[in-house]
Amino acid sequence: MAEVSSPYELCTLAEGLDPEEHVIVTYWVQASTQTDMLAKAVALAVEQSSGTWTDVPYETEELKTGYAAKVVGIYGAPDHELIATLPTDDGQRDYILRVAFPWHNFGDNLPMMLSSVIGNVSSMPYLKVLDIDFPRAFAERFQGPKFGIAGIREYLGVFGRPLLNSMIKPCTGFPPEVGAELLYQAAAGGADWIKDDELLAPDIAICPLDERVRQYMKAASRADKEKSGKTLYTVNITAAPGKLKENARRALDAGANALMVNVAAIGLGALRDLAEAPNITVPLMAHTCFQGTMSSSPHSGVASALAAKLARLAGADLYLNVAPSAKFNALREKFLQIHHALIRPFYHLKPTFPLVGGGVHPGMVPYLIELVGTDFVAGAGGAVHGHPQGSRAGAKAMRDAIDAACRGEDLFEAAKKSEELQMALDKWGIYSETDFARLYTIDS
Amino acid sequence: MAEVSSPYELCTLAEGLDPEEHVIVTYWVQASTQTDMLAKAVALAVEQSSGTWTDVPYETEELKTGYAAKVVGIYGAPDHELIATLPTDDGQRDYILRVAFPWHNFGDNLPMMLSSVIGNVSSMPYLKVLDIDFPRAFAERFQGPKFGIAGIREYLGVFGRPLLNSMIKPCTGFPPEVGAELLYQAAAGGADWIKDDELLAPDIAICPLDERVRQYMKAASRADKEKSGKTLYTVNITAAPGKLKENARRALDAGANALMVNVAAIGLGALRDLAEAPNITVPLMAHTCFQGTMSSSPHSGVASALAAKLARLAGADLYLNVAPSAKFNALREKFLQIHHALIRPFYHLKPTFPLVGGGVHPGMVPYLIELVGTDFVAGAGGAVHGHPQGSRAGAKAMRDAIDAACRGEDLFEAAKKSEELQMALDKWGIYSETDFARLYTIDS
Repeated sequence: MAEVSSPYELCTLAEGLDPEEHVIVTYWVQASTQTDMLAKAVALAVEQSSGTWTDVPYETEELKTGYAAKVVGIYGAPDHELIATLPTDDGQRDYILRVAFPWHNFGDNLPMMLSSVIGNVSSMPYLKVLDIDFPRAFAERFQGPKFGIAGIREYLGVFGRPLLNSMIKPCTGFPPEVGAELLYQAAAGGADWIKDDELLAPDIAICPLDERVRQYMKAASRADKEKSGKTLYTVNITAAPGKLKENARRALDAGANALMVNVAAIGLGALRDLAEAPNITVPLMAHTCFQGTMSSSPHSGVASALAAKLARLAGADLYLNVAPSAKFNALREKFLQIHHALIRPFYHLKPTFPLVGGGVHPGMVPYLIELVGTDFVAGAGGAVHGHPQGSRAGAKAMRDAIDAACRGEDLFEAAKKSEELQMALDKWGIYSETDFARLYTIDS
Repeated sequence: MAEVSSPYELCTLAEGLDPEEHVIVTYWVQASTQTDMLAKAVALAVEQSSGTWTDVPYETEELKTGYAAKVVGIYGAPDHELIATLPTDDGQRDYILRVAFPWHNFGDNLPMMLSSVIGNVSSMPYLKVLDIDFPRAFAERFQGPKFGIAGIREYLGVFGRPLLNSMIKPCTGFPPEVGAELLYQAAAGGADWIKDDELLAPDIAICPLDERVRQYMKAASRADKEKSGKTLYTVNITAAPGKLKENARRALDAGANALMVNVAAIGLGALRDLAEAPNITVPLMAHTCFQGTMSSSPHSGVASALAAKLARLAGADLYLNVAPSAKFNALREKFLQIHHALIRPFYHLKPTFPLVGGGVHPGMVPYLIELVGTDFVAGAGGAVHGHPQGSRAGAKAMRDAIDAACRGEDLFEAAKKSEELQMALDKWGIYSETDFARLYTIDS
């Protein structure tokens, strides 16, 4: 029974760890000026891996070497070096911590990984997990998206422009015929992908899953003939895991060509189960409602860009990234971080198609293309179904805006050839950097 | 196609709703003095049920009547009535909102309920969901805990005193023999229930699930003979849902008499699937690590007492309530709210046994009994396995403290007859209201 030595010995600012054996977790932490951040960081690393608040005999140095997490970086922000520059007594200091967790502690078990990197410490009042760096060996345990951007473009036969998605509005409370009609109109008007609202339950009595899928897919194929294209329809199968697989099977049996789940509400493990199931042969969309319970606070929880990265790892083909618009006031820098987490190179994992939604209307399209290029899905629910001439005109207005913006044409010019676009611009206007600047002071 | 009327008509301060048809959700919201809270509350209610940010034709009054959520209470805190008493221009006002959701929108589908009550609005910067009131008809869809407090007491044959739990420490990194030995010692010393640490993964190579359960249960029955009692062992089966059921089956096949999951990491739906599975015939423990990602912020997410209520609804027999101690600095009032959510009358749902853990040691026992009585489990990991004379002595010290406190005997008096207790008190002291008051200014 080895005597437990000073925590500084094994767990602090470790160097030379095998990078393939560890995931590196980045935290933001705030603490009072009096805090010994070295000790606090080590306590966090030990507490979230092998140890507890008091020494216990079997926590030997050997065990710590193999299983304890190690602090690999403590960065003050700003980085004080002199007592004279410290804030006054009641001051707080901000830090970025980097902690290496041996991933054989949890394997590729995502709920156990979350329990380790942000389990009990999620109750610390000023700690937020910002990122996790995964080594190749860890990422290789995951299949990731089955389709990704390229696979979905291939299926639809649409290249070189943003896709158009329309979520059916109202969210719930209507029979399948109403939804099917709205789907038909939006798809015939030019929408590539129709989705259920995240609030439409699979088993709601007025619009049951099987009947909904049957009628919607029939409406989709009617629209497909008219537009000489294809339509993806993601049916919301969100439920407890046992029911989830059953819902997926029922949806596929009824002819669904894509599925949707509210990922934060069902959990990453449930998403992965679906994504890696061999019999799920259609794209999977992850809606992010409820994620705000973990990400909205600047001081706790899980950063939204990390949540996006994890959903990609778990296999989301499509992922909702809330538009940097007036509806939710998402910071543009966060919007872009989420976007990049979904599409940037990440070992063998295919890029996840970002759905940009939340208050999107035709007048926002040029702004979005300027921001992220053409590899995204423009999601418009209200702006399609709330168009003065109806859903079909609403979808056409969006598509005309997309096509014009891709040609580099001014929307007002384009609207001269499109009554639908003109009416949309009249109703909702043009969204520009200036609208954004009204909400935030930005430099550019 | 009805014209959509003013939102005030249908959704504001509705009265006379059928109480069996609605769940009532309580939110805290903060907004600037200039905000029209009536409009904002209605927007929230509509957005989270039937509608969107712009009017759409099919969202008829009929649909709203049946499917829109309705605001049933807006309470200023404080409650301003005169312009003269309002804060200055930059001021913020606090509100408690009560919103009634027709629960046929989501049925008893918990992920869909969460998506509705705190889905997209979880991205509002100053909104936290505090409580949900469930009507009987809704609660009756749930089985709740299979065992609860009475069932677990019955199984163990222990009445009239707090149970003693010990989590095995170190958390991870040891082979089954080491864990089995620690279990044996703690159980023989008087622990009623041994649990894996929440960080011990089911499939870690050094301590695989099946072998762990076999060796632990053998150690438990050795201890049971010595103490003439029974020992519950909750093995951590936390994993993605597909694997979860497999882990449960493997654990039961290997002889486990209880199971444990990290509920916030696997999701409430996954917990319920396990709890209501007819072939899971043992108590289920819900660990709350990762819940802090949703509850730590005072300004967003899900209040911890609501999370506890939901876990009880989903069927947790045992639930971790972090001690109001120095380790996590939980507010005593929050600790008590969680406690009450677990045990108070709730239709047919059995009370969930609260496990009070996190820095608990013998000197804290009288304080805890004074706070909540004897219907709780005292959870001690470090204080058992970190006892100077080892785990068996550590468990005995805890049991001696429990028995003394239940007799109303002073711990120092009791320690005269118990060397183990004396050594524990020497090492960790007595925890009292004063220690608590050192952290917070409290009135009592």
